[in-house]
Amino acid sequence: MVSINIPDSLLGSFAFYSAVVLSKTMAMSLLTAFKRIKNSIYANPEDAATVRKPVVFNNETVERVRRNHLNDLENVLPFVLLGGLYLLTGPAAGTALWHFRIFAASRIAHTISYQLALPQPSRALTFFVGLSVNASMAYRILSSLSQFA
Amino acid sequence: MVSINIPDSLLGSFAFYSAVVLSKTMAMSLLTAFKRIKNSIYANPEDAATVRKPVVFNNETVERVRRNHLNDLENVLPFVLLGGLYLLTGPAAGTALWHFRIFAASRIAHTISYQLALPQPSRALTFFVGLSVNASMAYRILSSLSQFA
Amino acid sequence: MVSINIPDSLLGSFAFYSAVVLSKTMAMSLLTAFKRIKNSIYANPEDAATVRKPVVFNNETVERVRRNHLNDLENVLPFVLLGGLYLLTGPAAGTALWHFRIFAASRIAHTISYQLALPQPSRALTFFVGLSVNASMAYRILSSLSQFA
Repeated sequence: MVSINIPDSLLGSFAFYSAVVLSKTMAMSLLTAFKRIKNSIYANPEDAATVRKPVVFNNETVERVRRNHLNDLENVLPFVLLGGLYLLTGPAAGTALWHFRIFAASRIAHTISYQLALPQPSRALTFFVGLSVNASMAYRILSSLSQFA
Repeated sequence: MVSINIPDSLLGSFAFYSAVVLSKTMAMSLLTAFKRIKNSIYANPEDAATVRKPVVFNNETVERVRRNHLNDLENVLPFVLLGGLYLLTGPAAGTALWHFRIFAASRIAHTISYQLALPQPSRALTFFVGLSVNASMAYRILSSLSQFA
Repeated sequence: MVSINIPDSLLGSFAFYSAVVLSKTMAMSLLTAFKRIKNSIYANPEDAATVRKPVVFNNETVERVRRNHLNDLENVLPFVLLGGLYLLTGPAAGTALWHFRIFAASRIAHTISYQLALPQPSRALTFFVGLSVNASMAYRILSSLSQFA
């Protein structure tokens, strides 16, 4: 039977940092809505009808937020899923905590780099730091649980 | 050590409503496939080859379902993740249950508004109700677990 | 109170196969980056500026990986969420294990079919196998927990 052995504080840290990055991800919805309304850029005819405009799919200001949002879905959602499974492998609390902190910091820096269009490789670096945290947790899960394949 | 204190019935409600909204999300895959086949609209050359047609990326009927599906990924997946973490904070059962019910209802209403192209602000309202449920759960997690940051 | 009744080995199998399919999903990020760099195809002006080229949004080689990645988000992320909730319903260990194995195999086969552009219905078959596993788990959750609606 399950004998999960996770300190309360580590589970709390995981939940806290997960909520941070999920909130950041959902904030992209609000930013998209704000930029759509401000610039009257809509993808649905019934939305564009409210300002009597045609639909527009290639506005750079709006599309930049949407690319950022999709990148969050590709990285933040796997982080929360892998993070929860990683806790089941009984990692050292300090190691796990720094995985969560570094990931959260990397995704906030990624968003700043993306929305300010900072010169590369600033955004690329923040992206690979976050991906490395996910890869590290995935490796730990795969290597410590391979007997259950 | 973990002393999770979640009533069985609340965990059951969370699992039930999560399965409802995840099933609704996956139904968009079937709807996309149905509309692609019915209208012979394909994005991959090897798919379009089966009906000897060129690829098409801008069919409004198909793209409307795809936008709906992406909106589900942006909202439904965070709901399930935040919902599970929210249960760890020991919310009142009635409060939590109504979070789950309102979210599920809002996303079903969102899909109906989207696919019938109902005049705004119908879809916008359903969207913001769902986002508010997610924001409320995220706020609860962040405020009650900030000592573990 | 929660009396989760999941064998350690089944939870381990779930975590293992979840990490397999999440790693496969994240590998699409690296494949996208590789193809973007190799072909100098960038969606952001600040990225394209590094090779003094204009932005390009319709390169088939890059877009094929991106469609594959989005299909993973639509299927793999619901799998991990439904899989975790499905374990709460106390499924037979052998039944659950084969759900996880078949899903993982179907998504690896899906990626191979997609990236090699194999003639249909090869990719469609792999897709529907994975969707059927998710549907089966969702049905089990909905039917066994309906009293908590």
